[in-house]
Amino acid sequence: MAQRITGVLSPVVTPFKPDYSPDTERFVRQCKWLVANHVGLAVFGTNSEANSLAAGERMELLDALVEAGVDPARMMPGTGCCALTDSVRLTAHAVKLGCAGALMLPPFYYKGVSDEGLFRNYAEIIERVGDARLQIYLYHIPPVSQVPISLKLIERLLKAYPKNIAGTKDSSGDWNNTKATLDQFAKDGFDVFPGSETFLLAGMRNGGKGCISATANVNPAAIHNLYANWRAADADELQAGLDRIRGIFQKYPMIAAMKRAIAHWSGHPDWATVRPPLVELGAGQSAALLAELQACGFSMPGLKA
Amino acid sequence: MAQRITGVLSPVVTPFKPDYSPDTERFVRQCKWLVANHVGLAVFGTNSEANSLAAGERMELLDALVEAGVDPARMMPGTGCCALTDSVRLTAHAVKLGCAGALMLPPFYYKGVSDEGLFRNYAEIIERVGDARLQIYLYHIPPVSQVPISLKLIERLLKAYPKNIAGTKDSSGDWNNTKATLDQFAKDGFDVFPGSETFLLAGMRNGGKGCISATANVNPAAIHNLYANWRAADADELQAGLDRIRGIFQKYPMIAAMKRAIAHWSGHPDWATVRPPLVELGAGQSAALLAELQACGFSMPGLKA
Repeated sequence: MAQRITGVLSPVVTPFKPDYSPDTERFVRQCKWLVANHVGLAVFGTNSEANSLAAGERMELLDALVEAGVDPARMMPGTGCCALTDSVRLTAHAVKLGCAGALMLPPFYYKGVSDEGLFRNYAEIIERVGDARLQIYLYHIPPVSQVPISLKLIERLLKAYPKNIAGTKDSSGDWNNTKATLDQFAKDGFDVFPGSETFLLAGMRNGGKGCISATANVNPAAIHNLYANWRAADADELQAGLDRIRGIFQKYPMIAAMKRAIAHWSGHPDWATVRPPLVELGAGQSAALLAELQACGFSMPGLKA
Repeated sequence: MAQRITGVLSPVVTPFKPDYSPDTERFVRQCKWLVANHVGLAVFGTNSEANSLAAGERMELLDALVEAGVDPARMMPGTGCCALTDSVRLTAHAVKLGCAGALMLPPFYYKGVSDEGLFRNYAEIIERVGDARLQIYLYHIPPVSQVPISLKLIERLLKAYPKNIAGTKDSSGDWNNTKATLDQFAKDGFDVFPGSETFLLAGMRNGGKGCISATANVNPAAIHNLYANWRAADADELQAGLDRIRGIFQKYPMIAAMKRAIAHWSGHPDWATVRPPLVELGAGQSAALLAELQACGFSMPGLKA
């Protein structure tokens, strides 16, 4: 088995044109900038507005990335959909392209579903894709999906498919759950990525493998710096610095706020566009966000339109 | 404008083969049985496991129905998806086939979205489909979608698109909301369908147009009978009879229970199959459900395998 992907990954925000169609060129440029800042590409995550994209749109964007020479070993695309058939199609496509992993939401329309039903979903995907290279990262984000991935489900999936179940992104925002997941499964080679850099240092100190975080879209170098130096004497100070920047973005709807910052520092106004049902920041919010970021010396060096 | 669809509609349960692929022949047969029982076809609703189907799968099933000679004037397919591009594609396809309406979920992945964002979603679909025949029924089902359709949103959409916004399916289970919707909009020609026959009689007495209910899959003739005779002296008794049957199904996961009943009365065991993340009823549940239904004289006359 190839070495697993580790470190800091970004659920890459998806650039749209004013007509809401994906802007492939800007997408490729953004991904290259992130990789140059040592950040992996968890494209088609929650912060990518992936569920606002059709399956075909995701596949075209992923093809474009690979064709542009971005290394699929740095990619962990989101491939978990409500429909089993969509999940199989997207996952098989990602594996075929050589992506390091697939980040998989549970099917999220029906609520209160059983672990048996979720097990069957993942088992069917694994069986149908039928490729030893498939590395699945279970995506636990109950505040949005409303469908949690329980520790019992992880245990059962790991036992049934030890070669394909590679890890998890824990976006519960609940450190107790992340810690319990680390304690129970990290020793078995199950790679745990907290869903925010808020828990990057705590995660690394407890056997985590990095983080997959929205803010890695806008603050990649600093987050990677803590990942690379988590054993350093000033690690807690580095963590505090990350928390300060994240705290500013978190005052606003995150996706719209990150896109607004990218629009500003890239000089390309279309970056502010989000697909419905999301809405962009208003003028007052935009001004307040940028003022606060500038006041603490934030910038996005090297970003291009 | 053609006359609007009214009466009792069924979110038709989708038959799967053991490999979870849709069984087109059984689907067409089931739809014909429902129409013969005076029930319209709200195919691809929540109870159809529509969100467990890829967009292409839905389109193929709808094509098959029309090709089999089922009248599209009796159809209100579900076409609201998380991705704007999928919603536009499915809605345009339904309008092109001549369907009476389109039942539209809001995009349901992101939670806590604004009415402005939901307005933009529906407005974009209407503008892009660009067809005067398009009749949208807004699908309010907060217990599952977690994204409500507020009265303010209905008001705004009706004002902006009076010719395309035709009505709503209210599956909130909250009669106060259904009543408020009727009181505020029914007089403007906005057609309100409660999402359960539990509220069929109350709805009709307050200006409703019928109901769109899960149980219409299994008890169509009796539900239609109340619709047709809601002014009769024994209407309250008819309602009580409907409630009794629904009460039995509601003791179990509804979709699995209805499919189990159809499997029994059609004699085709594959009807019990549900797609993950749902699971079929266990043996004990199945036996209890069928025993209770048989004890009160329930059957599904005319149903074929």
